[in-house]
Amino acid sequence: MSSLTSSPAWISLQEHQKTMAAQHMRMMFQEDPDRFRKFSLSAGPIFLDYSKNRITEKTVSLLLHLARQCQVSEWINRMFNGDKINFTEHRAVLHTALRDPSTEPLLVDGMDVREKVRQVLSQMRSFTDSVRSGQWKGYTGETITDVVNIGLGGSDLGPAMAARALEEDCTSPRAHFVSNVDGAHLVRTLRHLHPARTLFVVASKTFTTQETLMNARSAREWFLSQARHEKFIPLHFVALSTNRKEVSAFGISPDHMFEFWDWVGGRYSLWSSIGLSLALTLGMDKFSEMLLGAFEMDEHFRTAPLEKNMPVILAMLGIWYINFFNAQTHAVLPYDQGMSDFVSYLQQMTMESNGKSVTRDGLPVDYATGAVLWGGVGTNGQHAYFQLLHQGTPLVPADFIAPVHSRTPLGNHHQILLSNFLAQTEALMRGKSHSEALAELLSSGMSESTLQELLPHKCFEGNRPSNSLLIDRLTPHSLGSLVALYEHKTFVQSLVWNINAFDQWGVELGKQLAQGIQAEWNEVQAVSSHDTSTNGLFEMIRKA
Amino acid sequence: MSSLTSSPAWISLQEHQKTMAAQHMRMMFQEDPDRFRKFSLSAGPIFLDYSKNRITEKTVSLLLHLARQCQVSEWINRMFNGDKINFTEHRAVLHTALRDPSTEPLLVDGMDVREKVRQVLSQMRSFTDSVRSGQWKGYTGETITDVVNIGLGGSDLGPAMAARALEEDCTSPRAHFVSNVDGAHLVRTLRHLHPARTLFVVASKTFTTQETLMNARSAREWFLSQARHEKFIPLHFVALSTNRKEVSAFGISPDHMFEFWDWVGGRYSLWSSIGLSLALTLGMDKFSEMLLGAFEMDEHFRTAPLEKNMPVILAMLGIWYINFFNAQTHAVLPYDQGMSDFVSYLQQMTMESNGKSVTRDGLPVDYATGAVLWGGVGTNGQHAYFQLLHQGTPLVPADFIAPVHSRTPLGNHHQILLSNFLAQTEALMRGKSHSEALAELLSSGMSESTLQELLPHKCFEGNRPSNSLLIDRLTPHSLGSLVALYEHKTFVQSLVWNINAFDQWGVELGKQLAQGIQAEWNEVQAVSSHDTSTNGLFEMIRKA
Repeated sequence: MSSLTSSPAWISLQEHQKTMAAQHMRMMFQEDPDRFRKFSLSAGPIFLDYSKNRITEKTVSLLLHLARQCQVSEWINRMFNGDKINFTEHRAVLHTALRDPSTEPLLVDGMDVREKVRQVLSQMRSFTDSVRSGQWKGYTGETITDVVNIGLGGSDLGPAMAARALEEDCTSPRAHFVSNVDGAHLVRTLRHLHPARTLFVVASKTFTTQETLMNARSAREWFLSQARHEKFIPLHFVALSTNRKEVSAFGISPDHMFEFWDWVGGRYSLWSSIGLSLALTLGMDKFSEMLLGAFEMDEHFRTAPLEKNMPVILAMLGIWYINFFNAQTHAVLPYDQGMSDFVSYLQQMTMESNGKSVTRDGLPVDYATGAVLWGGVGTNGQHAYFQLLHQGTPLVPADFIAPVHSRTPLGNHHQILLSNFLAQTEALMRGKSHSEALAELLSSGMSESTLQELLPHKCFEGNRPSNSLLIDRLTPHSLGSLVALYEHKTFVQSLVWNINAFDQWGVELGKQLAQGIQAEWNEVQAVSSHDTSTNGLFEMIRKA
Repeated sequence: MSSLTSSPAWISLQEHQKTMAAQHMRMMFQEDPDRFRKFSLSAGPIFLDYSKNRITEKTVSLLLHLARQCQVSEWINRMFNGDKINFTEHRAVLHTALRDPSTEPLLVDGMDVREKVRQVLSQMRSFTDSVRSGQWKGYTGETITDVVNIGLGGSDLGPAMAARALEEDCTSPRAHFVSNVDGAHLVRTLRHLHPARTLFVVASKTFTTQETLMNARSAREWFLSQARHEKFIPLHFVALSTNRKEVSAFGISPDHMFEFWDWVGGRYSLWSSIGLSLALTLGMDKFSEMLLGAFEMDEHFRTAPLEKNMPVILAMLGIWYINFFNAQTHAVLPYDQGMSDFVSYLQQMTMESNGKSVTRDGLPVDYATGAVLWGGVGTNGQHAYFQLLHQGTPLVPADFIAPVHSRTPLGNHHQILLSNFLAQTEALMRGKSHSEALAELLSSGMSESTLQELLPHKCFEGNRPSNSLLIDRLTPHSLGSLVALYEHKTFVQSLVWNINAFDQWGVELGKQLAQGIQAEWNEVQAVSSHDTSTNGLFEMIRKA
């Protein structure tokens, strides 16, 4: 047994779960009129109602006991202070510094990270101002109408998600995002663009990420097929990278290489120069509002006591279901069409962070860690997979997110959207009992035999947990807070699980094997260096 | 105990699982050079390699024993014959008839469904030909350049998924899809369109689906704000519905109401008139190729023996992991950028079908049913959530899908894409042992202390199951086969779980409660008819 699962806090929670498993939330609401007030709180622009969870005050107190046992507060301070908590890579973890307006020096290896952040933000501002104002000209003297971000994972998902969410704030140039090495992604994107008016932002820290560089080189060829001269490349390509040599070799001017640092993990890099494509379409003022929204959540996270700390509460509720109710998944359901990429973004953030099974001490875990995060926008999900949430067998804890006001008001649309938002968490919690379903069927005048046949299918057990998160409206500011909320939630869970949320060794093996396969592509003999399945598939593909 | 979990086949599998849990696939491949041949098969345009599963020949034989015990073959025949197997709604289940070119009558309640299908297909052909050729004119005499499909769930996800997948086959008009009642969806879509050149396809069987009708009415207003006269509505709105009265009241000509029937479930309706928007952009010839691809899979499913039956094999492998390894999820990972909506589509198909917990006999199940289906396109996922697949704690069985040839060839892109496709299933299966990781670290010349610290994080346990599905290229034909494959897989799982895959009572309660909330929106008093959480959130929203 690990020290976690044999710890007093863990054992108390196991005991407590046995009591709670038998209790229905509907009763808890009936018994305690104060439940909503007790289990809700605000942080910055976000209101969280977590009263529709299978918890009592005792549950919360036991969960916070576990958090204290895992020294959550101490670790939060270590992160903000720039300690090298990403110990397998010997790195500090300072995405919070990217949005902290403070000018007090924060030193990592003798370097003031705040100074560095200010420099790059200022470089981003002058560049985005120049492109957006039309001062920056392409090789024919025309202005830039389209930006194509070429990047993968953290160099893609964050800016793409935010650009879609904030479409109403985005002006010219339009932003496009190409990530997949599948040629279809680049081909389909470039089909509608013109080289003379397109700017490519190539995002790769090392400037060697194979997929990104392959896309960048194909984009370069597409551009040159029209522009003819390599001397025009600096007008149409910029880089988000630290590899000055490779960037220059590509033809990009070193003045237009935007840096970031090893204390910014890919999946936490939206706030750095990786946000450049977003800043280009959004403008630097609104980009800064997003940073400020995140900073507000940082301050809350850093200073609020655990029992009033929104990321901590959400993290511990997750632990409750994953480790004590055997939930393998967590659904995120924004009631906002603009947030259609939010789930993809969170998938990387949470699953790449906590999809680990070795502790900080190098021991295998004997408990579940990261859950599969999935979901999508409401009301669409209601007409797709919500059946399983309501009547399926797996327990799926869910976060419902909604803006009180629409950015694109239209008739009664928003009222109906929010009615559904409210109704779904109500339905999941209360269910429909046998006697309620029976009464309904009886009143419909159905025959006795049909009624008996149908009745079991019309019942809902309810007691399915959800959080409701409200924001006033979806703006750069509130989006910034929301993202930071999930970042910190993810971090807190990693602390309880005693894993490193900031490395990602699990992506290495596939890369390594892919390189081996590529090297064999043109071999004359049949390939036999793999298992028979991989060999067999490979030969089918090569011969086709 | 249910009759399922107390059945001989089930108990044998439970026993067998104990042996299999300790065995590593890497060893199985070493021991049996014939494994790839044994565990692979073709059906229509699809090749399936299922050798990278935690199975032996005995496993397959026990799983097929379970399938036989559940009378899978008999139920397959009942479905194709038009028996009313959707018994809670007293309906036949005949999406297969939508793609069956046979002219032999197939009677349901005395009606020849094949005759009906032919009529509607012919109506679709003359309409799509007329719009695509430019013969159909809008109210200013211009041709139609854009089609907006307004529908939800099954009236949206299928055509939207296919239109994106087959972008290279789509010509004019362009197809857009509006589903969410969030006004942003319609507003953002119409922003770039012109009323005189836009055709709306309103898809709602009853023509009363609230979200769809709200979007349709707002689209109608947008159109009329320019066109001025209601007499122009029939030129710009058509309906996929059965409610002639409501369709006419909306202003749509009954000649342009395209029917479907109650033996076509929403999530199985892509093949019916619900595919009209797709057929408009694809052309009816290619739409028919898609039907033919599905029909080819139907014939395979109907006639192949269970041990060579691709949908049956996939279904039983799913059962193996869900019911005997406690997997709550299943990942689908197409290595094709065009298939970016495939997962959303399958989410409805599988989770709305099998997210049930009451048997056909009306008893609660005592075993897991439908899993959470999730995933997305590769290579993107590799840079996002694959960390969890490789090193996380939950077991996530995965389907990897790839086309051998690209529709948009570009340099070496496709070779790199496929190298990654091959490498990922290899990595998941074999892992990287302690000694392999050690040898690598030693050869890197790392210090002993760093090495010891890093080593556990660089190991991969492997033994993670996947299926590889190959198609020659992504065409209407192969896409049709793929979709039918998952339809039938889903059906077979429902047979083993003894549930009705074709109803969806679980979506009713939320709808019902949402109507209640809407009715209270303008109440003067504070709302108190719900639990305190719903009341509290509602008041916060109303007051904001």
